[in-house]
Amino acid sequence: MAQAADPIFLRPAAQGDTDRGHAMNFDAQHPLALDCGRVLSPFSIAYVSYGTLNAARSNTVLVCHALTGDQFAASKHPITGKPGWWETMVGPGKPIDTNRFFVLCTNVIGGCMGSTGPASINPENGQPFGLDFPVVTIRDMVRAQAMLLDALGIKNLLCATGGSMGGMQALQWAALYPERVISAIPIASAARHTAQNIAFHEVGRQAIMGDPRWNGGKYGRAQPIQGLAVARMVGHITYLSEAALERKFGRELQDRAAISFGFGPDFQVESYLHHQGASFVERFDANSYLYITRAMDYFDLVADYNGELSTAFRKSITRFCVISFTSDWLFPTAENLRIANALPPANVLFKAIETDKGHDAFLLDEPELLVTVRDFLNETAALRAIA
Amino acid sequence: MAQAADPIFLRPAAQGDTDRGHAMNFDAQHPLALDCGRVLSPFSIAYVSYGTLNAARSNTVLVCHALTGDQFAASKHPITGKPGWWETMVGPGKPIDTNRFFVLCTNVIGGCMGSTGPASINPENGQPFGLDFPVVTIRDMVRAQAMLLDALGIKNLLCATGGSMGGMQALQWAALYPERVISAIPIASAARHTAQNIAFHEVGRQAIMGDPRWNGGKYGRAQPIQGLAVARMVGHITYLSEAALERKFGRELQDRAAISFGFGPDFQVESYLHHQGASFVERFDANSYLYITRAMDYFDLVADYNGELSTAFRKSITRFCVISFTSDWLFPTAENLRIANALPPANVLFKAIETDKGHDAFLLDEPELLVTVRDFLNETAALRAIA
Repeated sequence: MAQAADPIFLRPAAQGDTDRGHAMNFDAQHPLALDCGRVLSPFSIAYVSYGTLNAARSNTVLVCHALTGDQFAASKHPITGKPGWWETMVGPGKPIDTNRFFVLCTNVIGGCMGSTGPASINPENGQPFGLDFPVVTIRDMVRAQAMLLDALGIKNLLCATGGSMGGMQALQWAALYPERVISAIPIASAARHTAQNIAFHEVGRQAIMGDPRWNGGKYGRAQPIQGLAVARMVGHITYLSEAALERKFGRELQDRAAISFGFGPDFQVESYLHHQGASFVERFDANSYLYITRAMDYFDLVADYNGELSTAFRKSITRFCVISFTSDWLFPTAENLRIANALPPANVLFKAIETDKGHDAFLLDEPELLVTVRDFLNETAALRAIA
Repeated sequence: MAQAADPIFLRPAAQGDTDRGHAMNFDAQHPLALDCGRVLSPFSIAYVSYGTLNAARSNTVLVCHALTGDQFAASKHPITGKPGWWETMVGPGKPIDTNRFFVLCTNVIGGCMGSTGPASINPENGQPFGLDFPVVTIRDMVRAQAMLLDALGIKNLLCATGGSMGGMQALQWAALYPERVISAIPIASAARHTAQNIAFHEVGRQAIMGDPRWNGGKYGRAQPIQGLAVARMVGHITYLSEAALERKFGRELQDRAAISFGFGPDFQVESYLHHQGASFVERFDANSYLYITRAMDYFDLVADYNGELSTAFRKSITRFCVISFTSDWLFPTAENLRIANALPPANVLFKAIETDKGHDAFLLDEPELLVTVRDFLNETAALRAIA
């Protein structure tokens, strides 16, 4: 049977520290059947929970992370020591209020923070999987989350939410388990990756796979940091709007005196990218980057339902709140609107939030985002008579 | 003195082949003083000319190439065997009509197609310069072109034109030599690079410099092809609009049957990028990519004139035709309009061409572009009584 495991890589829990991570281990009797046709077994799902599950088990909010996110949505990151990636949104009195809701955040299958992924040990040979790990999909990630919920005895999600790839998971939840999802809030997301999305991801993958340290995915602890950093840098540009970059950095120099006539980081925007690259490789696995970007590229709810997105949600009873940011050019408002237009009109609220902060706005202290999520979740809770 | 040299790397000229390249060698008596404070001497400028210089020496059109372009604007490329990069625009009866105009196209200083650049031999040690080559600017490129014109006995340019970095050179010409430039047609260009422009270039440079084969710029013939290919791939995405990528590729698969659940090029857009990367490294030098992107990043006509772009053109008698493409997100219409707004209103025609083809539209068979250039050049020629 599935059983809760000890936290697998966190520091020992401090007294009163209730936000430490857990992992659920699924044994050979609980295999995960994957879209690729292979089976993952045994496997683990690492997760963190915040708040308390009510007696009716009806107050669970599943928070789904983006490409480079993890389960530490609202607690200190065990490697970087930084605050959780969604502390603006999740916590006591926050829009996703942990005084009322039981918030669950899992590391996706294929990830590198405790859920089984390419850096995990392959039981067949005792070595890290590397590229022997099966290519997983967003649907596989969601199936694994559903197995975790089953193991925890939770049938329904009051809400599934997340930004970017987190929004893809929220949509996939509503499509795959329509009877289990009371509401969904996909933010800055899309029903499928565009050619440009795929192209940017492929640049990142080529940077990783072109780095000799990658070594066909068998790199042990010496990961291809140069390639992974380049992948992160190009990704980071796409997460910000041109206006935000201009406002934050413009053409400001590191040393304000003058340009160096050299190839070091003269401009502040260059230093910023270097920092993003260097700090990322400390906490993320290069192969996981390959697998998760691939899952995003493969995501196509339109094709999955024979070219008609509305079919994906035909049986859905879910209340949807679809949110986009006007300056997001990676997952533009038009792509989010396409989702909203495919949903039953009575069950969808669409909000295009005016901001110049680009895709990353879902992670930021963006007042209209916070109010929108808070209000929508409060309404949903009221409809379900949740205190 | 400066003297015309034999074509330096072309195949032997075939009979009747008048479009072969030339190079002008500048000896120690003709040094190039650079913005960085260093002096380049001796040095060479490789160029190709099309058409015939008239008796009054008044019909020269200088065509300036973009980042990865070269002097082969309207003749077969000596390495790839492909047609020139601007054959839609330059040739007999074309908008830049070689039956009427003497068209000159030079390889920029810092380039790798015959003009002195980082792959050239450093006379001080008999080795390729590598990073000992001085960091050059757009202004240095233009100064070198002016020396070539002087050596050819050509005082005035009927027109200076080019797209992208070619447009930067056209603008720099008008600012630096206002009395020599009768007209200028900067296309899809900008008076300065934005933070986002710099960021994308820095990703390319990091990809190159992070490739172990780069070896601090000392790689001989074994250049860092992986890094250079990644730089080209990310660049190429920025040259196309999202709409153009969607129209050309969408989510079409290479093998239409199914996705592979692997990391090969499943999607056509991935294969396209791979091809762009692989073909680029056959013809371009990695260090030149570093130097030329740096020159573009440093370009800032606004800062050069104390924050007031109009000052750059205060003494200008040049007629300007400033052209942008509505879907160009690398050098957006707003940046081109900023140029036009800084010019003397009586001397500027601004045209934002509606197209979904993105930045690369300047290289394409874009009817409105061709008509605009043709008409503007005809008017300019008529004003100067050129047959």
